[in-house]
Amino acid sequence: MPLKQKPAGKLISFEGSEGSGKSTQLSRLAAHLQKAHHEVVTTREPGGTEIGEQIRNIIVHNSKGDEMCAETELLLFTAARAQLVREIIAPALIRGAIVLSDRFLDSSTVYQGIGRNLAADPVNQINRFAVGNVMPDMTIVIDVPTDVSLERIRQRASDLPDRMERENIDFYEKVREGYLVLAKGMPDRFVVIDGTLSADAIEKKVWHAVSERLASPAVLV
Amino acid sequence: MPLKQKPAGKLISFEGSEGSGKSTQLSRLAAHLQKAHHEVVTTREPGGTEIGEQIRNIIVHNSKGDEMCAETELLLFTAARAQLVREIIAPALIRGAIVLSDRFLDSSTVYQGIGRNLAADPVNQINRFAVGNVMPDMTIVIDVPTDVSLERIRQRASDLPDRMERENIDFYEKVREGYLVLAKGMPDRFVVIDGTLSADAIEKKVWHAVSERLASPAVLV
Repeated sequence: MPLKQKPAGKLISFEGSEGSGKSTQLSRLAAHLQKAHHEVVTTREPGGTEIGEQIRNIIVHNSKGDEMCAETELLLFTAARAQLVREIIAPALIRGAIVLSDRFLDSSTVYQGIGRNLAADPVNQINRFAVGNVMPDMTIVIDVPTDVSLERIRQRASDLPDRMERENIDFYEKVREGYLVLAKGMPDRFVVIDGTLSADAIEKKVWHAVSERLASPAVLV
Repeated sequence: MPLKQKPAGKLISFEGSEGSGKSTQLSRLAAHLQKAHHEVVTTREPGGTEIGEQIRNIIVHNSKGDEMCAETELLLFTAARAQLVREIIAPALIRGAIVLSDRFLDSSTVYQGIGRNLAADPVNQINRFAVGNVMPDMTIVIDVPTDVSLERIRQRASDLPDRMERENIDFYEKVREGYLVLAKGMPDRFVVIDGTLSADAIEKKVWHAVSERLASPAVLV
């Protein structure tokens, strides 16, 4: 286990479909937190470490995307996550930093579990094994309707969209619904924000939610 | 699950420390089986598929070997295994082939579980998730004392030994002992052969064990 005691820092994960705008919002939140004199560590999944970026490369640029089985995909995502937790996130939390992660374990629950119909029990067991006891203190879901996220993906796709962006509409519907179900089940950890608002409006809502939670005794242990 | 019914083929895995001679014996057994007009598929772990070889590359040639955490290592090995099972082994077994695998799930039980002190429960759960219902019909352990396997590794190491061959003696002792414990607990599946015998003598013992089991009603379903 990477953490023996409750660390001083906080882990905030951003989740949502591709095209939800979560990466933009993560950067804006990082700027706010730095202005407030917090040490901020930003990272992304899959990746975030040398080993994790090599794993990301296999997942994202796998030239014959359809041939990677769902089980392999889950195990690769969780392998990258296990490394990220132990190499970057846990040490940062121990130092007292606020870690912002573009995706974390809920992505596997939703994309590989719900999206690809893997059974929930092994997905949860493997997720838990990968993260040890490092769970997000707060998870921000930027929620957009599937047609909006697909349109945004198409607009930014320069050439052929990569493996994760070639999925069909049903898959993205399941992903969106999956996040909403998780958020409903864990209201203390999750905040859902309407991703169809302007980037500035979302930024305000994110900052409001984060400053409220960081200031609350429940989170600021 | 990759296999819906009991397949016609057989899966035989070879296990043992590096330097045990198992790869040589796998090739010799393949030649015997082909002479006996079996379709033989040989593979190796980690690897055996395009995706698996990319994963192997991360594991084996990871330049800063010590920085890969044990959890990541297990998840990468099982990711390669999940792909190998679904892409190569299960289809071959369904065709009725005899599949010879240089390492399979017992390597994770022994190397990552016992060798690296990961808890047995998650290792077994993740192994089971990776292989689905594809278990070896027979597992041949080529057993050599640790000093012999280390001496063989040193002799064949051209330059810097790779990540898996830089471990210390205690690690290899645990690996050897781990295989013997597994074999004792599952005598129906495991055969342990003394790897200090000559290659020809081992070959005969392997062939005797395999032909005995392949001919027995318990295995030849």
